Amino acid sequence: MRLATFSNETPDGELVVVSRDAQRCLPAGGTLQQAIESWSMTEPDLRALAARLEQGEGEPLDHGRLLAPLPRAWQWLDGSAFPQHGELMQKAFDLPPIETDRPLMYQGLSDRFLSGTQDVPLPSEADGIDFEGEFGIVTGAVPMGTAADAARPHVRLVLLINDWSLRAIAPVEMKTGFGWVQAKPACAVAPFAVTPDELGEAWQDGRVHLPLEVQVNGQWFGHPHGREMQFGFHDLIAHAARTRDLVAGTIIGSGTVSNADYDEVGSSCLSERRAIEMIAAGKPETPFLRFGDRVRMEALGGPFGIIDQQVVQA
Amino acid sequence: MRLATFSNETPDGELVVVSRDAQRCLPAGGTLQQAIESWSMTEPDLRALAARLEQGEGEPLDHGRLLAPLPRAWQWLDGSAFPQHGELMQKAFDLPPIETDRPLMYQGLSDRFLSGTQDVPLPSEADGIDFEGEFGIVTGAVPMGTAADAARPHVRLVLLINDWSLRAIAPVEMKTGFGWVQAKPACAVAPFAVTPDELGEAWQDGRVHLPLEVQVNGQWFGHPHGREMQFGFHDLIAHAARTRDLVAGTIIGSGTVSNADYDEVGSSCLSERRAIEMIAAGKPETPFLRFGDRVRMEALGGPFGIIDQQVVQA
Repeated sequence: MRLATFSNETPDGELVVVSRDAQRCLPAGGTLQQAIESWSMTEPDLRALAARLEQGEGEPLDHGRLLAPLPRAWQWLDGSAFPQHGELMQKAFDLPPIETDRPLMYQGLSDRFLSGTQDVPLPSEADGIDFEGEFGIVTGAVPMGTAADAARPHVRLVLLINDWSLRAIAPVEMKTGFGWVQAKPACAVAPFAVTPDELGEAWQDGRVHLPLEVQVNGQWFGHPHGREMQFGFHDLIAHAARTRDLVAGTIIGSGTVSNADYDEVGSSCLSERRAIEMIAAGKPETPFLRFGDRVRMEALGGPFGIIDQQVVQA
Repeated sequence: MRLATFSNETPDGELVVVSRDAQRCLPAGGTLQQAIESWSMTEPDLRALAARLEQGEGEPLDHGRLLAPLPRAWQWLDGSAFPQHGELMQKAFDLPPIETDRPLMYQGLSDRFLSGTQDVPLPSEADGIDFEGEFGIVTGAVPMGTAADAARPHVRLVLLINDWSLRAIAPVEMKTGFGWVQAKPACAVAPFAVTPDELGEAWQDGRVHLPLEVQVNGQWFGHPHGREMQFGFHDLIAHAARTRDLVAGTIIGSGTVSNADYDEVGSSCLSERRAIEMIAAGKPETPFLRFGDRVRMEALGGPFGIIDQQVVQA
């Protein structure tokens, strides 16, 4: 099942169910946040709408009205679960290895998620404007102390996310140990939030088994695969819920998708490609983004739809 | 003006204006979040209710119905603006000094703030259960790039906060550079959110000039003063808004209140007292909290009301 949110006069928009071919939709009533909060009651109704869509019902999908599936959320916890990304960054910048066997995670801005097509307003090119292709999930309400295996059924929806990042600020904030505030402006989310079953064979062990293709200004940049997560999303849920209840509608991110064969599949952020260049040639070649640059992301063969945005001066 | 939130059947409760003697209140209609979102329209009405209260109107204040002023918020950004606290922690734990001339800040759990009297459910005494006495503010909508001086009028309300902390986890997470997730469960907030003018002379240069008295199980623990913030709250707003718009209702915290004459005034968290003990005697004497322990906080002579909570097993 694919869900999306149409813009209206409210901050949370209105929920629609979308056909598998992304051509038609039916209004579901209410918002996605409301649906997630009462999932056991709403899911059967939503699936009934999805079945009607597959029988040809529905109105044409107005792509211009699509917001992020959750235009705002109570909580956004972003992981860094692809070990290749961390290894490259440490090697390039001669950083000490991060001493932990636990998932890496920080809490980020969740009061606004950009749609897949909204402009990305940022204050300065000097901040090192970068993207990060990620997969993410939306959870139901998860009680404190839920273990990883018990967390599996709490994955309600799967997302494709561009975690916009500012690389001139990131290491400064990271050195404080406090995590990132200025280095992490609002993320963008592809239009369709999908139930795990919609992914079929591409949902395995709490991971999205699809390549995430990134293009910058129309040029291929990379297509690393989601299967190389060191921890599955159920592990990330358990980590997050260790000392807190997770509110329904919590969004958890995988961190930058990154693969061991990066020389073949490329990267999903500029910073990693620059790290690879530094390791190979002593200095980075690829510049950060300028105002006017476009970034496009798509999970190839996946149901999330497309992120295609332009960076603009705030 | 003092504002508070009564429990009802909704997650955000209902807004009331409270008399200066905290004995009576008048319903304001709607929620505090709604009032903050439309402050220029709602403030005159709220002040009119406050004036009626000072003329003797109102119903008796039912303290048992008081929630946190914002029982949930879209964003909680906690600073660490008292330099004495950082210096003691670095010295005790032989940490390298944090290399930054900017405010320290992380984003924390904001989907739930405990009331001043709710039990604090935590999973394990082995996590090093601690409190942190802080002052905080609630902002209006702040545009990206707002400078510190221009940020001053965006301080809508001032708060007293207990930032519950888990010290066995904090250094592990801090070493990753990602900030804290597990080490920072839900905070508690004293019942009355007050406009800066309500503080009179105690609101100076974006700082709360009041001692924050902490008691543990009925015993004095400390009463450090709010004036020693290295950065005022307007500076913290500007820092937070460098690369993001701040949503109306953003809560920003001062970090642990801590003073240079800590040997006289004590501390506002166990971890700092333990650091002082380690520096003086080579090892900490004061234990972390056990289930059943109570922590009470009050800004002496201030209008925030009291936090008095018990730690319980989740």
